[in-house]
Amino acid sequence: MTKPCIICVAITGSLPRKADNPAVPITIAEQVESTQAAFEAGATICHAHVRNADETPSSDPDRFAALKEGLEKHCPGMIIQFSTGGRSGAGATRGGMLPLKPDMASLTVGSNNFPTRVYENPPDLVDWLASEMKTYAIRPEIEAFDLSHIHQAALMYRDGRLTQSPYVQFVMGVKNAMPVDRDVFDYYRATMARLLPDSEFCAAGIGAHQLTLNKWCVETGGHARC
Amino acid sequence: MTKPCIICVAITGSLPRKADNPAVPITIAEQVESTQAAFEAGATICHAHVRNADETPSSDPDRFAALKEGLEKHCPGMIIQFSTGGRSGAGATRGGMLPLKPDMASLTVGSNNFPTRVYENPPDLVDWLASEMKTYAIRPEIEAFDLSHIHQAALMYRDGRLTQSPYVQFVMGVKNAMPVDRDVFDYYRATMARLLPDSEFCAAGIGAHQLTLNKWCVETGGHARC
Ligand SMILES: [Zn+2]
Ligand SMILES: [Zn+2]
Ligand SMILES: [Zn+2]
Ligand SMILES: [Zn+2]
Repeated sequence: MTKPCIICVAITGSLPRKADNPAVPITIAEQVESTQAAFEAGATICHAHVRNADETPSSDPDRFAALKEGLEKHCPGMIIQFSTGGRSGAGATRGGMLPLKPDMASLTVGSNNFPTRVYENPPDLVDWLASEMKTYAIRPEIEAFDLSHIHQAALMYRDGRLTQSPYVQFVMGVKNAMPVDRDVFDYYRATMARLLPDSEFCAAGIGAHQLTLNKWCVETGGHARC
Repeated sequence: MTKPCIICVAITGSLPRKADNPAVPITIAEQVESTQAAFEAGATICHAHVRNADETPSSDPDRFAALKEGLEKHCPGMIIQFSTGGRSGAGATRGGMLPLKPDMASLTVGSNNFPTRVYENPPDLVDWLASEMKTYAIRPEIEAFDLSHIHQAALMYRDGRLTQSPYVQFVMGVKNAMPVDRDVFDYYRATMARLLPDSEFCAAGIGAHQLTLNKWCVETGGHARC
């Protein structure tokens, strides 16, 4: 039997606006409707960001709560994953929605460069987010922007800072971080097999790179994101 | 004929004090004396930090100038490398000594976590340090704290932000960054052969790890640091 492929739908994201793409769901109602269409088409994980009324990124727990309620009603059984990424807030506000107990939440365990700035994930913030995920039995999706992030996730799983085998997303194609490179992708997979043999992987690319990365993932036993 | 091994002596560093180790050279006179002993023992690169009178790290160009003058007199022909690392200053002060035209200077091209904080190397600072090294014909030593840093160095060499093939130092064993791992070391080497075939490599480890890394380097055509 073939291994099933998990499809994760990343609704909204933190940056695109209606002016960039009128189809971007911004309000909770739009997000629920859009996710339901993806769910009915076969997506099983919803990776969610929320927005303020003016479309700027938010980490407001009330918005996350409303989204979760809508998704539970309209997409029963779908795996809900909240973003704790740094574009929606700073410091502890990034984890303020974790007491809502989503099934999963994203977790970046290291720092790296972004196109114009440093993506800051200081060690004490990483440890606090991980401890909240442990408290609320949330499975982390590690956003691996570089090789050491896979090693750090494996270390945190070994030493008990993470209690559930992490799902790992390879992030490629971000300017000033890791490029989209097949050799690195294959080495990431080999590193997963060596250090996190019970974990699954997927990949996120910027723009058109997403299709390339999904192809590489699906070919090699990983999962897809759209 | 066997390829010669380059020995780099990292005098002083940015952190250890006399209280930690009475042999740490702090004053310029001590630094020159200590480097001369290493030079006579076979070291050909001097990786240099400077200190204030109270032993705290400094990036004062006058101190670097005095050190360079002493080294040129007592270690003729030795390759002088100045540190632009973030422990000795912030922002542009990190490169204030580059107009002194050392032969080499360290350059970190990405950001990563340190034991208790983020090591910040924002893209505009990296580009400015690289442009200063270009202006003053200084060969960069890339401090590769993670895999993407090797890719970024190769990209900067291809697109002309670096005009001299970078010397690359793999930094391993820093808590919350890359561990000392032979599989990663071998993949770093393979990445160098693929992306920077004209470059040489060495490795820096914390404490006792330095001996392990020197052994791995010398075995595989890299260089040593002490
Ligand atoms: Zn995913
Ligand atoms: Zn996201
Ligand atoms: Zn060196
Ligand atoms: Zn140094």
